[in-house]
Amino acid sequence: MSVFLKNCWYAAAFSDEVGREPIARTILDIPMVFYRKEDGTPVALLDRCSHRFAPLSIGTLVGDEIQCGYHGLRFDCSGKCTANPHNDGKALKAADIDSFHIFERYGFVWLWPGDPELADPSLLPHFHFLEDDDTWKVLKGVLYVKGNYQLVTDNLLDLTHAPYLHPGFKMPGVTPEQQLAATTTKTERDGNTVHYHRMRNGLPPNQATIDLFGFPNEPCQTRTHMHWHAPALINFDNGSKFEGQDDLEGFCFPQAHCITPETETTCHYFFAAARNLLRDEEEIDHALMDVLNIAFRTQDEPMIEAVQQRMGNTGDLDSLNPVLLKTDAAPVMARRIIRELLDAEQAEETVIAAE
Amino acid sequence: MSVFLKNCWYAAAFSDEVGREPIARTILDIPMVFYRKEDGTPVALLDRCSHRFAPLSIGTLVGDEIQCGYHGLRFDCSGKCTANPHNDGKALKAADIDSFHIFERYGFVWLWPGDPELADPSLLPHFHFLEDDDTWKVLKGVLYVKGNYQLVTDNLLDLTHAPYLHPGFKMPGVTPEQQLAATTTKTERDGNTVHYHRMRNGLPPNQATIDLFGFPNEPCQTRTHMHWHAPALINFDNGSKFEGQDDLEGFCFPQAHCITPETETTCHYFFAAARNLLRDEEEIDHALMDVLNIAFRTQDEPMIEAVQQRMGNTGDLDSLNPVLLKTDAAPVMARRIIRELLDAEQAEETVIAAE
Amino acid sequence: MSVFLKNCWYAAAFSDEVGREPIARTILDIPMVFYRKEDGTPVALLDRCSHRFAPLSIGTLVGDEIQCGYHGLRFDCSGKCTANPHNDGKALKAADIDSFHIFERYGFVWLWPGDPELADPSLLPHFHFLEDDDTWKVLKGVLYVKGNYQLVTDNLLDLTHAPYLHPGFKMPGVTPEQQLAATTTKTERDGNTVHYHRMRNGLPPNQATIDLFGFPNEPCQTRTHMHWHAPALINFDNGSKFEGQDDLEGFCFPQAHCITPETETTCHYFFAAARNLLRDEEEIDHALMDVLNIAFRTQDEPMIEAVQQRMGNTGDLDSLNPVLLKTDAAPVMARRIIRELLDAEQAEETVIAAE
Repeated sequence: MSVFLKNCWYAAAFSDEVGREPIARTILDIPMVFYRKEDGTPVALLDRCSHRFAPLSIGTLVGDEIQCGYHGLRFDCSGKCTANPHNDGKALKAADIDSFHIFERYGFVWLWPGDPELADPSLLPHFHFLEDDDTWKVLKGVLYVKGNYQLVTDNLLDLTHAPYLHPGFKMPGVTPEQQLAATTTKTERDGNTVHYHRMRNGLPPNQATIDLFGFPNEPCQTRTHMHWHAPALINFDNGSKFEGQDDLEGFCFPQAHCITPETETTCHYFFAAARNLLRDEEEIDHALMDVLNIAFRTQDEPMIEAVQQRMGNTGDLDSLNPVLLKTDAAPVMARRIIRELLDAEQAEETVIAAE
Repeated sequence: MSVFLKNCWYAAAFSDEVGREPIARTILDIPMVFYRKEDGTPVALLDRCSHRFAPLSIGTLVGDEIQCGYHGLRFDCSGKCTANPHNDGKALKAADIDSFHIFERYGFVWLWPGDPELADPSLLPHFHFLEDDDTWKVLKGVLYVKGNYQLVTDNLLDLTHAPYLHPGFKMPGVTPEQQLAATTTKTERDGNTVHYHRMRNGLPPNQATIDLFGFPNEPCQTRTHMHWHAPALINFDNGSKFEGQDDLEGFCFPQAHCITPETETTCHYFFAAARNLLRDEEEIDHALMDVLNIAFRTQDEPMIEAVQQRMGNTGDLDSLNPVLLKTDAAPVMARRIIRELLDAEQAEETVIAAE
Repeated sequence: MSVFLKNCWYAAAFSDEVGREPIARTILDIPMVFYRKEDGTPVALLDRCSHRFAPLSIGTLVGDEIQCGYHGLRFDCSGKCTANPHNDGKALKAADIDSFHIFERYGFVWLWPGDPELADPSLLPHFHFLEDDDTWKVLKGVLYVKGNYQLVTDNLLDLTHAPYLHPGFKMPGVTPEQQLAATTTKTERDGNTVHYHRMRNGLPPNQATIDLFGFPNEPCQTRTHMHWHAPALINFDNGSKFEGQDDLEGFCFPQAHCITPETETTCHYFFAAARNLLRDEEEIDHALMDVLNIAFRTQDEPMIEAVQQRMGNTGDLDSLNPVLLKTDAAPVMARRIIRELLDAEQAEETVIAAE
């Protein structure tokens, strides 16, 4: 039985990673190759020729088809073998390879590894800030994390780690304990979505945003509404405002965090973060990206990888009996939903196999 | 049961790799040490002292014997422990180690890992071009390939990959499809040998040989006669000639390709290539070696290693059900012969064990 | 069943490695964190938070407690969780982690991984030379060896390897055979201690000590009394004197060698070597350390790692049926004692489990 959900959306790539030069990426333990047709449509195929198992990603595109770089077999966008140059160019039916259902929106190429009939774009989170360039300036990046993908979710759905792991996000003169005391949290399940809300009142903005945007060291209201969609897409509404401001007058920092398993113990972690303030200032782009990179790449990523090392070869934290805190409500709820969905998918597969 | 044939010849080393400085090389998963006696005879022993398992290859030679670098035990060329310095220098019978049957010819040290009684030099291919310095100039090299040894054989016994993987071997103005169309192929089995013949008529020489030897861009006849001897020795008669020339007036480029398993998923790949033209020009030596290194080291080797990666931890391609093309006739025949020989060896071992 | 003895002392660290900055070290396959309380007492805890398995070694000290760097849980020196900042700072009993019994003496932090009730400091060897700065100057170091810890013991308890592996310790004009012939050896068992004595008469001092201390090239008496305490602590009395000298007038070079398993195939190897001559000369410190580093790091360590490679993934040499020599008496006796003690510990565990 797979340890991964199949009938769901995963981020496969940023749109601008995929072009007329094929790229290889392993997702859910499956080697895949991604490229674009001449009309720009993205394509995802098994990155392994059926003949001698050469990676197609080191082949070449011929129109909309990909030609194996070893012996020249060609495959169309559905994985159908269209030509075998060693047989007068005739196709070889038995040589067809798997193709994968993908869909492009919000600057991402999304992958539905299960039944394409079930692939419903409306199941994607609504990342509105990735579709409105007039209001938002977007920064993005991808991390390769040597840890199970759920460890990244755990990290995001419990932001109480911030005052300990991310000193740059502290408020001036405020201890971690004061920060936690000023924060209220609510976790709700809605179908297969977890809503995790954090509100903080009466404390100044964090030091990073003071430095970036020149905010005053005065009390403000900070919100984080995190919407997790199984198994690993997070729509993240973050912002802060001073008294008398409405949300959009304040600082808005909505984010997309999309985590995609590579193997049981490694993952691809895509993030996109939008801001409404000083949108046209490149200096802010660089300074904000530095802040994100420090937090994500030098603090979260090493911590997650250290946790994975302590877990050994398994990606299943629950099997190791961790102690749970109240603040784990959201991560635990998310893990339970994944467990339910996996059980249902596997029961379904068993029924199909028995029929 | 071993995955490797034992009663057959493998290339263990080039003759000039073996001298009075012991070298270590693992072959068929067995660590071996090679050196030469004072009279020049090569020796192959288990590279592991029977006492504390030190590699003898980091020991020192004393006359024709090798002395362990850890506690000073000495072994003769048959693996017999001849002296234990901690027992008044007396030998210790129980400390004998394995020696291996080797034989030197054609500038190679050949290894017969099975029963020495069966080791028959006449079973070696006749690499005539490695014995006649007046006619031939030889270039050679060894690659360490992180792939099962049969993947290298597959690569050689199906040269239809050349127009796809080796752009430097294209003919000027000729497409891969035209090249394939102008080529006829014949595959024959003769005992445990596979003969794979390729003849091409009416096309110009390939660009590499035009550049090297100044051949005209005119139609020629090109031959490749490949003689594979189980499990992995290939005698390779390659050449091209223009109308009115006999073979030796044209370009002759006979080659030896000898592939030796290190482990199930790695191998040592020895090649030697001889030419009859411009034999004394060092510039041609360098330019031709560049051509071979580009093809073997930057095209074939990465492709074979990528295929092995797609295969995972097994070296057995057949177990993964690859699709077969007509052009796989020779590789499939070779794999079948290896299978037959392995089955026979293992049946023999079972009989011996039961007796 | 563990492959390691538990009710015994292991060297965990040099005292000066442990301070107010936590350090991580894996011992007997267990990740541990070491630090000092404000009063200087050393502490050893499991290096894994019970909540999300973060290594505590990347956390921070708060007084005598360690605070997890991920979510801020705090643990005292006994492993008790004393504070959870996400629950009004209250402790969480279920979150307690393991602590380990340690004890400091001779400039080492010693670890007793088994029952603390049984931890008896008097079971430690008496390393007198590590407690008397007026008489002795001590040099020390720690090696990380990619080999089973018993391979290091084997190396030390059979010094007949010296003339083969350590050319710097040869006597001028003396062959290895002459050196061995002039040496008498005695091995005795006393409880769980092995005494291994080597006496050499009539040969000059070794070249290294001639170079370091200007000894004459004249016959002397050399002693090595090695006292091995299960499973891997060696108290080593080494020295040489010329006629008419008593021991302390000659060169005394007592040493502590303490080997601690990290995993079955890796270990930490601590050494401390004291001298009575030219104690205040820093030049001699450097020159002597060079001699030790050449022997331990460039000769013993690579040999032990090469042996481990030849053994594959097991750390159990006996399971591979090595040939034994007379000179293996002490290593064999040591291995037998470890086997006896392991059997007794495991029988005890079985009884406890059955009760």
